[in-house]
Order: sequence, then C-alpha cells, then structure tokens
Amino acid sequence: MSGEFELILCDIGNTTFHFNIDGKEQKYLLSSSIPDFEEKIYYVSVNDNATAKLKLTNEDIVDLEPYIDFKTKYVGMGLDRKIACCFIEDGILVDAGSAITVDIIKKGKHKGGFILPGLKAYKEIYPQISHKLQFDLNTKVNLDKIPLCTKDAISYAILKSIIEPIKKVSKKKQLTFTGGDGELLSKFFDNSIYKKDIIFENMRRIINANDCIT
Amino acid sequence: MSGEFELILCDIGNTTFHFNIDGKEQKYLLSSSIPDFEEKIYYVSVNDNATAKLKLTNEDIVDLEPYIDFKTKYVGMGLDRKIACCFIEDGILVDAGSAITVDIIKKGKHKGGFILPGLKAYKEIYPQISHKLQFDLNTKVNLDKIPLCTKDAISYAILKSIIEPIKKVSKKKQLTFTGGDGELLSKFFDNSIYKKDIIFENMRRIINANDCIT
Repeated sequence: MSGEFELILCDIGNTTFHFNIDGKEQKYLLSSSIPDFEEKIYYVSVNDNATAKLKLTNEDIVDLEPYIDFKTKYVGMGLDRKIACCFIEDGILVDAGSAITVDIIKKGKHKGGFILPGLKAYKEIYPQISHKLQFDLNTKVNLDKIPLCTKDAISYAILKSIIEPIKKVSKKKQLTFTGGDGELLSKFFDNSIYKKDIIFENMRRIINANDCIT
Repeated sequence: MSGEFELILCDIGNTTFHFNIDGKEQKYLLSSSIPDFEEKIYYVSVNDNATAKLKLTNEDIVDLEPYIDFKTKYVGMGLDRKIACCFIEDGILVDAGSAITVDIIKKGKHKGGFILPGLKAYKEIYPQISHKLQFDLNTKVNLDKIPLCTKDAISYAILKSIIEPIKKVSKKKQLTFTGGDGELLSKFFDNSIYKKDIIFENMRRIINANDCIT
C-alpha cells in the first residue's frame, strides 16, 4: 500500500471488516483476505476472532475501546452502540440496522435503551406466519389513515410499531439516526438528523481528543 | 355419535378443524380424520380444501358466511376477522394469534385495521438476527423504565411495539381481545375485555338471529 499519510479506521463487526481510509470506505467479509497496510490502523471490534485476524496481517493497530468515555449501568451493551452514543449530551440515538437499537441519553448519562427488530427482519417475519401475508413494505403508506387492505395493514403496522415506541421515549428530544435504514426512518420524525457514518465520525473525534494515540 | 340435540359449530382454519359441541371444544388437524356427526354442523371456513373434506364425512352442514352482516371497504379481510368484529358497534377488536390483527369499528362501520406479528413470531425473529439476541420474553418487564440489559431491552421493545400502535388508534375506545395471547395483552390496557371464544360466541348469535337456519 502507499506510504503517504492516511488515517485508517476499521470497524470490525460480526459480518465484515469495515475500513475507512481517509474517508473512503472498503468492506471485506470476515472470511476473505484483508490488505496489509503500512499505516497504523485504529479499530474498534465486537469480534475477537476477527481482531486476531487483523493482527496477523497488520502489526501497527490501535484498539480505541479504552479511549471511549461512556458510562452506563446497561449490562452487555455492544461497543458499536457505545461509540455511536458517546458524544451525545441529551438525545436519542437510533441505529437502524439488522436490529434497531434505541438509546436514551440525558445530561451526558445513558439512561438505557431497547432493541426492535430491523426492517429486513420485519419483512421476513410475515411470510413465516402465513404465505397470505407476503407483501413488500410500502414505506409511503399513509400513517394517518387506518389501512383498508392487507398490504397496507402490514406496512402500517411495521412502521407504527417502530415509530410509536421511539416517539414515546423521545418526546421533544433530538433524535440521531444512523444505520442502513436510518435515513428512511429519520423522515418520520420532526426533530431528527441522520448521520451515515457516526461510528467513523466518533472514532475520529476520539483520536483527535487523545493526542497521545495519534 | 349420540342422537340427542347438540349444537355443533366448526371453525375451519388453516391448521385445524376447531369444533365446539354444546360448549365443549375439540380440535383436529386438517390432515387427520374427523368424526361423522349425525347433527347439523354450522361452520365458517377460511380453507376450501378443508371445507370439502368436512362435506365428505358430514352431509348436513351449514355455511354461516352468507349470514354474517359485516360491511367494510377493506379488501381481502379474512372471514375470522369479520366474525370476530361483526357485533361491535364502537370499539377495537384485537385478535392476538400467530399474527395480531387490530380492527377499528366506529358507529357500526369498519374503518380498517392493521396486522402486527404475533408474540411467537416476535420471539422467533430476534435469534434470527443474532444469537446474542436469544432471550425468553419477560412479560413482566417494567414498561415505565428504560431497560438496562439486553433481555429487558427486547421484552420492552416487543411489548411496546404492540401496545403503542394499538393505544394510538384506541384512545378511550373499548378494546376487545381474543386469540391465544389476547388475555395476556389485554392486561396492558385499562379499557379492555378478553373474550376467549368470540368466534363461537358470534356464530351462536348469528344462528339465533337467523331462525330460518336453525
């Protein structure tokens, strides 16, 4: 790889190595081979086996986990959730991926959270109940009108079952959405913003805030 | 079978022949053999093949569908939903089975409805997303407190995602719950009643209201 200065970040999940190299993204399945970078790699990981694999090909790697300043009484909170939330002072973080995690932060303190199924999981569940319930999700269904056909009845229920519990806890707080379905879901809330790359964004903030590790 | 007078009702679904013989219930899988009754059988059916099977073994059968007085603009509403709703003047009917159907009736008119996944489907969906999300549903989780562990985060999300959309449409209307999880869910609502056998109850009311068919 090039010897020029690059900031290389890696978010190690349960499916991929997700690299961000000076803002450019690259994804590798955990089973595939990954590049041997010359530069230091700053990473966060929820997967020990994958971390070990990164270490085998790349010597100069820095785990950002010890630098994450996030206090919570929540037992078993994933590192990705912590990083996504760690710079929110007051608000709600919604990470809408395969699951939808909703975390509530008040005066810099994490108050807890809940976990809804992701949109893809919702879509898959209905045909498992009955083949008569197999429909595409219509994200444009009118949520102010009670549905008058099964297709709308399912789309309405999926969206309402995600939106209403979030509205219930958010009241007028600021909502930050991230994750694959974050942009879509953010549109159902007035007081919301969507941040595509909150994990990488916050990894950069952690690096900048800790001069010692750069 | 006995020649004494018995009122025999049959609710033919997609899994079973569900008989009610003078209040006593008997279930037969659609694939198993069913008794040859001497008495008339009043039935409703959502399954044509199973209806044909009932006709083969029992000559004197009466389809109650034509006697159901239920008007709706909803396209494709299942007969079981119609029967459950047909005597409600103003209120919400929640049938909590493999799916949870929610129907809204105002001044004797069906305004529409929506379809949530059933509790069993919800329970099955989380482990499909990740083995880390495999937990039993805790129906006693405190819904007034933001969860502080993953087990509670899932139970809270499942219950809230069912309860909140129903509360949103019900406001102060009377809620009638039925179905396998109806009793459990009814307890989360103040203005609710639970009717275990609303289908058979309403079949009897239809028979009584139509002397000609007894």
